[in-house]
Formats: sequence, structure tokens, C-alpha cells
Amino acid sequence: MSPRGDSEKMEEHMSRLPIAATTAAVIATASAQAVEPIALRDMGSFHVGGRLVEISGKPVKEVQFTPGGVPAKVDPNGTYQVEQMYVQYFLPANERGAYPLLMWHGGGLTGVTWETTPDGREGWLNYFLRKGWSVYNSDAVERGRAGWAQYPDIFKSGPVFLTTANPFERFRIGDGPNSYDPDPAKRKLMPGSQFPGEAYDNFVKQGVPRWTTNDEATLAAYIAEVDRIGPCIIMVHSQGGGFGFKVAQARPDKVKALIAVEPATIGDPARIDALKSIPILIVYGDYIERDSRWPKMRATGLSFAESIKSAGGSVDVVDLPQAGIKGNSHMIMMDRNNAEVAGLIQKWLEGKGLTK
Amino acid sequence: MSPRGDSEKMEEHMSRLPIAATTAAVIATASAQAVEPIALRDMGSFHVGGRLVEISGKPVKEVQFTPGGVPAKVDPNGTYQVEQMYVQYFLPANERGAYPLLMWHGGGLTGVTWETTPDGREGWLNYFLRKGWSVYNSDAVERGRAGWAQYPDIFKSGPVFLTTANPFERFRIGDGPNSYDPDPAKRKLMPGSQFPGEAYDNFVKQGVPRWTTNDEATLAAYIAEVDRIGPCIIMVHSQGGGFGFKVAQARPDKVKALIAVEPATIGDPARIDALKSIPILIVYGDYIERDSRWPKMRATGLSFAESIKSAGGSVDVVDLPQAGIKGNSHMIMMDRNNAEVAGLIQKWLEGKGLTK
Repeated sequence: MSPRGDSEKMEEHMSRLPIAATTAAVIATASAQAVEPIALRDMGSFHVGGRLVEISGKPVKEVQFTPGGVPAKVDPNGTYQVEQMYVQYFLPANERGAYPLLMWHGGGLTGVTWETTPDGREGWLNYFLRKGWSVYNSDAVERGRAGWAQYPDIFKSGPVFLTTANPFERFRIGDGPNSYDPDPAKRKLMPGSQFPGEAYDNFVKQGVPRWTTNDEATLAAYIAEVDRIGPCIIMVHSQGGGFGFKVAQARPDKVKALIAVEPATIGDPARIDALKSIPILIVYGDYIERDSRWPKMRATGLSFAESIKSAGGSVDVVDLPQAGIKGNSHMIMMDRNNAEVAGLIQKWLEGKGLTK
Repeated sequence: MSPRGDSEKMEEHMSRLPIAATTAAVIATASAQAVEPIALRDMGSFHVGGRLVEISGKPVKEVQFTPGGVPAKVDPNGTYQVEQMYVQYFLPANERGAYPLLMWHGGGLTGVTWETTPDGREGWLNYFLRKGWSVYNSDAVERGRAGWAQYPDIFKSGPVFLTTANPFERFRIGDGPNSYDPDPAKRKLMPGSQFPGEAYDNFVKQGVPRWTTNDEATLAAYIAEVDRIGPCIIMVHSQGGGFGFKVAQARPDKVKALIAVEPATIGDPARIDALKSIPILIVYGDYIERDSRWPKMRATGLSFAESIKSAGGSVDVVDLPQAGIKGNSHMIMMDRNNAEVAGLIQKWLEGKGLTK
């Protein structure tokens, strides 16, 4: 009954894959099968943060929610709960992390980022849970199970939708502007790419609409999460970078370490001092110099890291190709070598004395 | 570090609760603490179903995804992946269910329905997982981690947003049309209500926008889920009722049992015969006769059940108050006696020979 490696799923893959790639995928999936059970002392979820907003002056509507259902009056005027976020937690029976590990996804995505890989291997949520970390995996404001609010009444702009092609180049999976093709067999991956290209279409299904005007609300909700959970370690990806650094700046007493996986943005340069007691790890993948946008984003991150170090802080930057780990896309936690990179992060946490 | 019963959370409750209710909440939360670990042989998630849609003739936009980020060109023309759904699975180390248990939420909600209660007790996901069921908990098309598609280009209508007040009466938590008040202390619950009224505002945070024109796509995605997982038992709530019955009618060989918790809608009356080999349990809560809409919805469900029985099928209907279980709202899986009702369902499953 395992959803990994079941025949139907493989069939789905096989229908659009050359034989060699399919065989490789089957082997990769089989070898990633979990053998040790995960023992949890508890699991569950909660929502946190948000605010109430009043809307008035609109007409009452009668809505038949489902065909055959009984119509209900819906008065759009009133109070709305908005800008909360969703957090799902998994607490291991044998806790070995000194603090809970909070996972914050990147733009246009949800907590699914950490749960699985597009080709059905285990994600970093399972990896760190198996290492004994309490993991809190969230959907930020406007995404996934956090819900979203009507615009322009509450959210100030409209949502951005991405085509299936868009992330292919932008996330350094495909090799250049014309690397995507609707036909999976004709797509051009980066040479030596670790991304499971044959399952790219599954990755696209993980995408959700995003806004570009909700940063303040998202930051407030993340701070509410940290205030609720207490002392913690934060792991961020991409757009989550700026939120991670800024929350650490707002709650330097509670954020015990920050791991930034390809941060697309940074913290407040005027508040560098707040970061100087927090161990920070920044990880970058491969192919950055071939990209149109990532050299600048990495330079911004490196410069921010230097400022923190100049202020007496501790920042370790791992450039994966320089460390001999090649082929990583922007979605490092989904790449075929995701366990290798997770292992590097786990070692860093151990080295910082953050395990017990 | 447990998110249940932590002091910050209780503080949050206490700030707006009279002393007596707070004490009751603390006791309820403490007694609901999980003692036995949950042992999983695997957990993860996947997306399933959906289709590709072309959009053309729109201008290219430059989008700065985050302040300080590098602007990216976003061409809205192209192919969109839409109408997939999200499924998260938990597979127990010691499996005692004969088939996986699929949980399908109701309208305006997501899989969070089954994960937790607004006052932080364990939800039915944990309950049935602890009983040895493989649980597949999903977000239907348009909801939560399933994502949603632009309208009116792809979805045919706009979304419906609910005020904080709306579900209070409609879900038979509050006693009548004027039972809701922005001040929690002034809200009027049903007499003897089992709903954790002091945590109603947390329930509201679980709500997400919904559409009324996506039934066909939702049905297709649920069928894709069943086709991927294989033989299974489906548990539905509210709006999920119609989807459960219709998927069972479309895949009578794969749906081994159907549990409908307050189904708001039914299956196709023209295909009753397809249901006659599937054991069906329908559960209704309390206060239905006091409600403006539920007497008709229950009558429709009971009449559908009679048709199935007349065709030779097996349907058990449990009216909870008649069975001596009183005070249940529409959100039975969140009520204070949720474990008691889950126990009734578990016994029914055992009685039908669906455990091992």
C-alpha cells in the first residue's frame, strides 16, 4: 500500500519516460524506501497569528454551495479572519534536537516543499524527524492551508500564477531560457542536474498562487509562530530567507540558529547587531554563475553574511559545488542528493552543540 | 515543547475566557495528551489528478517577487497545471486496517478538519492512525495545498469568503440566527453543545475560500486519488458526501466502505445499484430539527439511504442523539466527544470485518 514505488505511480512515470530514465527512477525510489519506523510522541497542527478585518456596504447573496444542497444566505459584510498561518508539527518520541526545527518554504510554494520530492522520495521533514528533531512545517500567510483573503479589499494586489514552464529555468533546473518544452522528453536539464527531471510535472502541481504585497503580514505571522513555540531553530528556503533573518532580528533571544537554503532575500542591514549571537548557515547550490538573477542574489547574501561577521557574528557559507557537491538546483531539498545535503546541515547543527 | 497545553497557548485562551471555562479547557487539554507513541513505517505527501490549460494573448509582466529581490519576467501566456489535489499519508508500523482510510473534508475547509480540534485536542487522523489505519488526508481541488486557478479564465466563477460569524449558526454551534457575537463571552452556544466554543476563533482560522463551480474537477481528482491508492475506505464530511457517494458509484470495485459524516449532498440517484455491495455508515449530529437547512439535508440523505437499501445495499444510519450521544455540532470530529463518536465508527468498521 505504500504510495512510494507503487505500480500505478511508476506506470504514470513510465508513460512519458525513456526506458533508461524509468529504470533509474525505480532504483532511486526503491533505495529511498524507509526501513526504520518513525516514532512520534505527538503530531497535529494549529493556526497562528492573523487579524480581524471589517467589510461593509456589500449586498447579501444567496449561495447554493453544492448542486442539490439547500441555498444559504451569505452576507459578505462583517468581520473576516485574515493573515493567519498554518503549522503542522511532528514530535519524535526520542527527541535529540536541543530546540524545535521550524521549516519555512519559499515563494509560490507551501510546506509540501519539505515533505516529499517530486519523484516520491523522502523529504527533509522526514530526514530531520528521523534524526530526532521536533519539526514544525508551515504554510505562510496566503499559501496552502493558511488560506487567503479577498483582494483588493484586504490583500492590496492580485495573485501571481506561474506557468508550468516558469520555474524550470528560474529554479536552475533547466539549462537556459529555452530549456523547457511541454514534452518532458524534449526538456533540457542542466548538465549533471540532481533535480529529478522526469518528475518535474509533479513539482509543478505543488505550486500555489502568491502575492507580492503581503510581506508585512507574513513576517507578523512568523513572529507569532516563534512566540508560540518558543526557543527554536529556523530553516528557510528562497523567499523565506528575508523572513528568517528578519524574525531572528525581531526575536534574537528565541532564534537559536538559522539555516538559510538559497535565501533570495536578506534581513534588515540596519539591525545587523541583533544577529551576532545566532549561529547562521547559508547554503547555495550549483549553476549560479550561469543564471541571470542568482549571481546578484548570492552576492547580496554573501555581503550580508560579511556584515554579520564584521559585527562579531558567526556565519558559515557552504557553496555546494565548491564543497564537491555538484548538480544542485534551487530546490536542493528535492534533488536526488537531498539526503547528502541534509547530512551536511545535520553535521553543522551537531557541531554547533544544538543536539542532545 | 508540546504545542498542546503549552502555557503561551493557554494564555492566549485565558485572555478572553471567563475563569471557569478556562479551567475546563485546561483539564480537557491535559486529559487529551497522547501517551502512546505513534509508530509510522512511512509518511509523506503527493499531488494527484488535474489537467493542463492553455492561456494566450496576455502581456508579459515584470514581477519583483520580494522587496530587494531581482525582478523576473513573468509571461502569463502558456500552460497552467490546474485542478490537481493534495494528499498527505501516514502509514502505521502496525497496520490493522484491511484497507487505507481516505479522509475527505467538507466545504470551505481543508484536511486540517481531521488533524486537530480548535482547542488543541487530537483529531480523527490521529485517532484512526493509532487504531492501525493507513490514513490518506487530502485537500480537495481549489483548497489548501491543492492550490487554485485563476478565474474567470480557468475556474468559472469567483471564490466565496465566509465571515467569522457565518459558520457559527450554519454549523449548528450557535443557537439560532443571532447567536454569534464578536465578543466570545457574548456568543450563545447550543444548549449542551459539545463544540469547544471557547476556541471557535481558532476554527475560523482553518477556513479557506471556496468555489461553487468546481464539482466536476473535484470529483475527477478524487477518482484519480482512488485509482492511485487502490482498494480503500472513504470517510467524508459535509460537502464531501456527494463526492464520496459519486466516487463509490464510479469505482464500486475499489471503494470497500463509505462513512458519511453529516453528508450535505448525496450520490447519483440513477446509479443506486453501484452502491449495493458497499457497506455504508451515515452519522448525524444533534440540533438538526432546530436548524433551517439541516432537516431537508438529512431527509435527502435518509431517502437516499432507503433507496440503496431497497436495491439490496447495506446502509447504517446513526442519529447520535437517538443513540444517546448528545450535543454534537456539524463539526463532529472536533467536538469534545469526538473520540466517543470515532469509537462508534471504529466499532462499525470492526463489525464489517474491515480490520485485521
